[in-house]
Amino acid sequence: DPNLKVFSLNSNPDLAKQIAEHIGIKLGKCLVSSFSDGEIQISIEESIRGSEVYVIQSTSDPVNQHLMEMLIMIDALKRASAKTINLVIPYYGYARQDRKARAREPITAKLVANLLETAGATRVLTLDLHAPQIQGFFDIPVDQLLGVPTLSEYFMSKQLDDIVVVSPDHGGVTRARKMADRLKAPIAIIDKRRPRPNVSEVMNIIGDIQDKTCIIIDDIIDTAWTITLAANALVERGAKKVYACCTHPVLSGPAIERIQGSAISELVVTNTIPLPEEKKIDKIVQLSVAPLIGEAIIRIHEKLSVSRLFN
Amino acid sequence: DPNLKVFSLNSNPDLAKQIAEHIGIKLGKCLVSSFSDGEIQISIEESIRGSEVYVIQSTSDPVNQHLMEMLIMIDALKRASAKTINLVIPYYGYARQDRKARAREPITAKLVANLLETAGATRVLTLDLHAPQIQGFFDIPVDQLLGVPTLSEYFMSKQLDDIVVVSPDHGGVTRARKMADRLKAPIAIIDKRRPRPNVSEVMNIIGDIQDKTCIIIDDIIDTAWTITLAANALVERGAKKVYACCTHPVLSGPAIERIQGSAISELVVTNTIPLPEEKKIDKIVQLSVAPLIGEAIIRIHEKLSVSRLFN
Ligand SMILES: Nc1ncnc2c1ncn2[C@@H]1O[C@H](COP(=O)(O)O)[C@@H](O)[C@H]1O
Ligand SMILES: Nc1ncnc2c1ncn2[C@@H]1O[C@H](COP(=O)(O)O)[C@@H](O)[C@H]1O
Repeated sequence: DPNLKVFSLNSNPDLAKQIAEHIGIKLGKCLVSSFSDGEIQISIEESIRGSEVYVIQSTSDPVNQHLMEMLIMIDALKRASAKTINLVIPYYGYARQDRKARAREPITAKLVANLLETAGATRVLTLDLHAPQIQGFFDIPVDQLLGVPTLSEYFMSKQLDDIVVVSPDHGGVTRARKMADRLKAPIAIIDKRRPRPNVSEVMNIIGDIQDKTCIIIDDIIDTAWTITLAANALVERGAKKVYACCTHPVLSGPAIERIQGSAISELVVTNTIPLPEEKKIDKIVQLSVAPLIGEAIIRIHEKLSVSRLFN
Repeated sequence: DPNLKVFSLNSNPDLAKQIAEHIGIKLGKCLVSSFSDGEIQISIEESIRGSEVYVIQSTSDPVNQHLMEMLIMIDALKRASAKTINLVIPYYGYARQDRKARAREPITAKLVANLLETAGATRVLTLDLHAPQIQGFFDIPVDQLLGVPTLSEYFMSKQLDDIVVVSPDHGGVTRARKMADRLKAPIAIIDKRRPRPNVSEVMNIIGDIQDKTCIIIDDIIDTAWTITLAANALVERGAKKVYACCTHPVLSGPAIERIQGSAISELVVTNTIPLPEEKKIDKIVQLSVAPLIGEAIIRIHEKLSVSRLFN
């Protein structure tokens, strides 16, 4: 369909190429660069009048740069008479600022939703929002894909025995349950608690992990503090082997060092955020969500249900 | 007045301090930092419920970072029940993207106006907008101060003889006229034209500059290409001495090198954009607009006319 156009900005050029290949079209031509003073310069190099446009961009580090690229692109598309402007945001940044944890804090995840709508977005497609409530921050349709099917498939292909899927905290139990169902495995939960104020946390493990192969699953791995502590605790309590996996490999600050030095034998992530060379270590396996996103775009464009993709 | 609060973000901390001193209050307490993954973290550390809040931030390089700091701060202030949120934007970035120069380009200056309003800004105070039309991009009140009075005062104090104020292009003649009136001097105009396509520009000078002291004035000096070419042309055609001045010292890329190697004997700028150490060269004099902005804030807060400040 000549009315379907897919553009890539600067966060995920490889993923965007793979998505376009999956759909069977060429990426739209556009220039996304910077002026000498750091201001973003965007110019769309082909007509998109009346088109259904998909823009692929994660708001990953450098998050403010990537977000502004997206906002400016939306503005350019709107003024060039795109029929619809569909944002494909594999990783939705600022998602952890989704509530006022303390007085006088912003709710940046909501602000970003408002900014994208103000610029002119008409739809959002994303993966594993840190909080499902973020869908409600938008007044336009938001489709959420999950990393669990892609991650589960990988572990299934490894044909591991005696698996336990582990949630690193209470908030992630639903996700662990989804993966466990696919792997036909039981779950365990790391139950951290602070017995008294100013006393360090105690790690309690709910569920049987003795001599088991554990797969810890989280949505985001950022500084890797939580996940490496969890992995080490599992091995100390008798786990045979520990895998970890997540959808969004933020991996900031000391993350790589911590993972290298931890009991994690393999970390499986997706490419919602690309890994720069210095983060491509032997322990990390990266899976592509391009087929998933490609299928979702085709289904949205053909006005079919997207939820079929992960049920 | 305890209901008047002034907060600084990260673009212009020194200017903000001077403004607060001019007004005779302390800067509001807030934390503006970054998480490990580069996401901005803001928390306001004092009550602002019912206050008239002024936020000082230029959208200078790194422009996208500075803009997001401002948007997130507005969100935090709004949710903390500020009565009014007044943005003091000494330098309004993206101002040169104020029209579609070619097909399928964004109009980022308008997008930024929409984003600021969406976040919750109720008023803007700025200096020398690159195009006066940008005021009309906002649906909230925008007051524009001018650099000309501050710059003119400096040149007046130098007691120069035989001055001509020079506009480096046709677009800047009104500004040159304003300065010339203050200095009681005539004006000249650099009249660039391209005789045929693919032939280099010819610099024509309209007005008498022979043996005169020229002061070239512009709003923004970015890569310094225009201004250094103009200065060299003036000296070649018989000017005795050439000063240059501008409100906004963007000074990106090769600017400092070009200024060093040019016929400009002194460049006078304001502090709407701070100069990092490596740009503080002997040829550059920086004047503070803190008294001007401080006065404007007092007048706005007391509901007096701001235009008095530059008429
Ligand atoms: N980019 C970030 N990096 C680290 N912590 C963050 C970030 N954004 C928000 N937070 C904090 O993370 C907490 C929310 O995380 P969670 O409990 O996992 O939803 C809040 O206390 C936030 O202040
Ligand atoms: N940050 C920037 N640096 C250099 N040129 C720019 C910048 N932003 C916009 N422009 C270009 O500058 C021109 C407008 O400048 P002007 O004619 O001075 O208003 C347009 O052609 C823009 O494409």
